[in-house]
Amino acid sequence: MSKKVKAIFGPEYKEYEVGDIVNLAKKEPLVLDCGKEISNFPIAYQTAGKLNKKKNNTILLCHGLTGDQYFTGRHPITGKKGWWEDIVGKGKILDTDKFFIICMNVLGGCMGSYGPKDINPETGKPFGLDFPVITIGDMVRSQKLLIEHLGIKKIAGVIGGSMGGMLALEWAVSFPEMVHSSTVIASASRHTAQNIAFHEIGRQTIMADPNWCEGKYIEQKKYPAAGLSVARMTAHVTYLSEHGLQRKFDRGLQDRDAVTYGFDADFQVESYLRYQGRSFVNRFDPNSYLYITRAMDYFDLVEAHDGVLSRAFKDISTKFCIISFSSDWLFPTSEAKHIVHALSASAAKVSFVEVETDKGHDAFLLDEPEFFATLGGFIKGVSKELGI
Amino acid sequence: MSKKVKAIFGPEYKEYEVGDIVNLAKKEPLVLDCGKEISNFPIAYQTAGKLNKKKNNTILLCHGLTGDQYFTGRHPITGKKGWWEDIVGKGKILDTDKFFIICMNVLGGCMGSYGPKDINPETGKPFGLDFPVITIGDMVRSQKLLIEHLGIKKIAGVIGGSMGGMLALEWAVSFPEMVHSSTVIASASRHTAQNIAFHEIGRQTIMADPNWCEGKYIEQKKYPAAGLSVARMTAHVTYLSEHGLQRKFDRGLQDRDAVTYGFDADFQVESYLRYQGRSFVNRFDPNSYLYITRAMDYFDLVEAHDGVLSRAFKDISTKFCIISFSSDWLFPTSEAKHIVHALSASAAKVSFVEVETDKGHDAFLLDEPEFFATLGGFIKGVSKELGI
Repeated sequence: MSKKVKAIFGPEYKEYEVGDIVNLAKKEPLVLDCGKEISNFPIAYQTAGKLNKKKNNTILLCHGLTGDQYFTGRHPITGKKGWWEDIVGKGKILDTDKFFIICMNVLGGCMGSYGPKDINPETGKPFGLDFPVITIGDMVRSQKLLIEHLGIKKIAGVIGGSMGGMLALEWAVSFPEMVHSSTVIASASRHTAQNIAFHEIGRQTIMADPNWCEGKYIEQKKYPAAGLSVARMTAHVTYLSEHGLQRKFDRGLQDRDAVTYGFDADFQVESYLRYQGRSFVNRFDPNSYLYITRAMDYFDLVEAHDGVLSRAFKDISTKFCIISFSSDWLFPTSEAKHIVHALSASAAKVSFVEVETDKGHDAFLLDEPEFFATLGGFIKGVSKELGI
Repeated sequence: MSKKVKAIFGPEYKEYEVGDIVNLAKKEPLVLDCGKEISNFPIAYQTAGKLNKKKNNTILLCHGLTGDQYFTGRHPITGKKGWWEDIVGKGKILDTDKFFIICMNVLGGCMGSYGPKDINPETGKPFGLDFPVITIGDMVRSQKLLIEHLGIKKIAGVIGGSMGGMLALEWAVSFPEMVHSSTVIASASRHTAQNIAFHEIGRQTIMADPNWCEGKYIEQKKYPAAGLSVARMTAHVTYLSEHGLQRKFDRGLQDRDAVTYGFDADFQVESYLRYQGRSFVNRFDPNSYLYITRAMDYFDLVEAHDGVLSRAFKDISTKFCIISFSSDWLFPTSEAKHIVHALSASAAKVSFVEVETDKGHDAFLLDEPEFFATLGGFIKGVSKELGI
C-alpha cells in the first residue's frame, strides 16, 4: 500500500529518504476549505506497534508546526531521536505492545506529504505559492482518508501538542463518532491576535529574503536560508519561558570572559538562537512554513460555531484530556480553560491538568514527569475502557 | 552654543532638519567603555521651559530605544506630536512654567547625535560598523558633558522609560551628587536573557538583509528596509500585552468579510504590524538600531557591583521613583521589584508603584491615568523640596 520516498531539502538541495507514503483521494478528490480540489496526493507517515484484529487500538499522533511524522526512531535528516521517543515504545506511556501508533506529516508539510515543493502538474514546476492554502480542517480530512484506507472505524486516541492539539480538537469536533478520546496539549480553540502576530513576523522574515524569489526559490535554484533562520529564532523564543531562558542562560557569555564590544554572539543565548536558526534551514521548507503557520492562524472553532465554543461539542461522546503548561505564554492556561469550560457546558467528559513547569510551550516535547503522569493516567483509562 | 542640523534618512535618503546640536568633548576626549576615545562630537537635544537663576530646575528626560529628543512639538520626520506631549507643558505634570526640561538624542542615535551614519574622519565615509560600540554608561557620560556645558550642577530629576530608565538609574549610580531624583519607568537593572534574545533577533533580521551591505549601505546607496521593517514588527509585539492585542484586534479581519486563503494581511493585527514596520524605516537608521540594542544588552548594574545590586546605591541621597506596568512582559514588575529591594537594602529613599493596565510595555508613552498620577505626585514632592 505504500512506498518509500525521497525529498529534497535546501539550502544545498540534498535528497533524503523521508519514509513511507500512501497516495490518497484516488477515486474522488478532497475538497479543501478554500474551494480547490486535490486528488491522488501523497501523505507520508510513520507507525509503531500493530493494528489488532478488532482494529480498535489506534493512537493517532498529531505533530506540531515544525514537527513531522518521526515520533520514534532516528530522524532521516537530523539523525536525532524521534520527538516522542520518551513516550512511545515497549512498556512506555504509549505502549507499542498494546497500541498501533500512527503519525502523518500534515498536508502542506515538507516531509513527504503533499506540499508547496511538490510538482504542480499544470506547470511541471514546484507549486510554490500556487499550492492551495490549507486549513487545520483540511489536514484532518486528509488524515481521515488514510485512517479509512487502513480500515479503521474508530481511533482509540487522537493526541497532539500545539498545532497537533488543534488537529486533536478538530478531529473530535468533525468526526466525533470516529474518536474515542482526544488529548489536547498546549493548544487552543482559536489562534489569538498575539499568535497571529508572531506568525506574521515569521512569514514576513522569510518573504523579505530576496532569495525567497516570490516563493519560486526551488526553480530559481536559490534558498531563503537567512530569512528562514531568523524566522525560526523568533519562533523559538516564543516556545520558551522567560524564567526558563534565565535559568538556562542568564547573562552567561559564550566562550569568552568579557563582552567584545561588537556584534558577535557574546551571550550564550545569542549563540544558542543562532544555532537553532541554522539547523532549522536544513530540515524545513520555507514555503511549508508559510502554509502551516497560515493554517494555524485560520483555526477558529469559536467562529465556526457561531461564536459559542460549547456548540462545537454538542452531544459529543468523545472523552477529552486537556493539558497546559504554567509557563507557556504562547498557548497559556487561559486558552486551555476556555476549551474546558466549553466542554463542561456541553456536559462532555473532560480531564484538565495545568502542569507546573518553567519549560514553556516546548514542555510537551521534553521530559516533564507531571505531564507524563497525566497523559499516562488518561491513556490507561482509555486502554481499560476499550479492553486493550 | 548650538546650531540647527540636518540629517539624512533612508530608504530615499531624504534630508530633514533634526534640531539643535552642540559639539562636546572639545578640550579632552570622552573615553568610552570599549576603550576608544571620541572628541568634538555632536549631541542633539530639545528643551522646553527656562533654566532658573539657581539652575536647580532641570528635568532630564531620557528616551527609549527608538525614541529621540522630540518629547514635545512636532516630530520633524513623522509630523506626529512629541512622545511626552501629554506630560510636559504649561500646567502639565512636568510644568514648563516651573521646570527646564531637556532631552538629548543618545550617543549612537540617528537624530543628530554622534552615531554610525556620521562621517568617519579617518576614511571620509560613514562609520557603519567602525563606529565604536557604546554603552548606557557612555550615553550618560556624554549627557553629563552637555549638562555641565549648561552650567548645571544638580539635576532636579532624571526621568526615563525602558532604555531611558536604564539611563536614569545609571545617572544616579554614576553621579549621585548631580541627581536629586531619578524616575525609572518600565525598566530594569540588567537586560534579561529573553530581552537579549529579542534584540539579537532584531539585529539578525537587519543583518540578514543583503541591502545592509555589512553596514555600508549608505556608501553603497542601498538600504535594508525589509530587514529593518521586520525587526520593528518583532519589537513592536513585545511592547504590547497579549490581552491588549486581543482587546484591540482580537481576530478582526482587515477590510474584508472573509479570509482570502492567501498571504495578504487578512487580519487587522497583520495589517497593523506591517504599517508599524513600514513607517519605522523612514525615521530610524538600521545601524543605530544595532548599536542601541547592543548598549541595552550590555547593561548590567548587578555585575558591575560584584553581583550585589544594593552596592550600587551605597550612601546614595538620590530619591527614587520606580514604576512598572502590570502587563509589561518585557520589563516585568519582578525586575522593578529587584531594583526596589536593592534600594531598600541600601536605605535609599524609594517610592514604587505597579500600575494596573493591559497596555503592556508601551504604557509609559500612552494616556494612563494611574501612571500620570504616580509621576505627578512624585514630581510635586521634588518641586516642593527644591522650592521650585
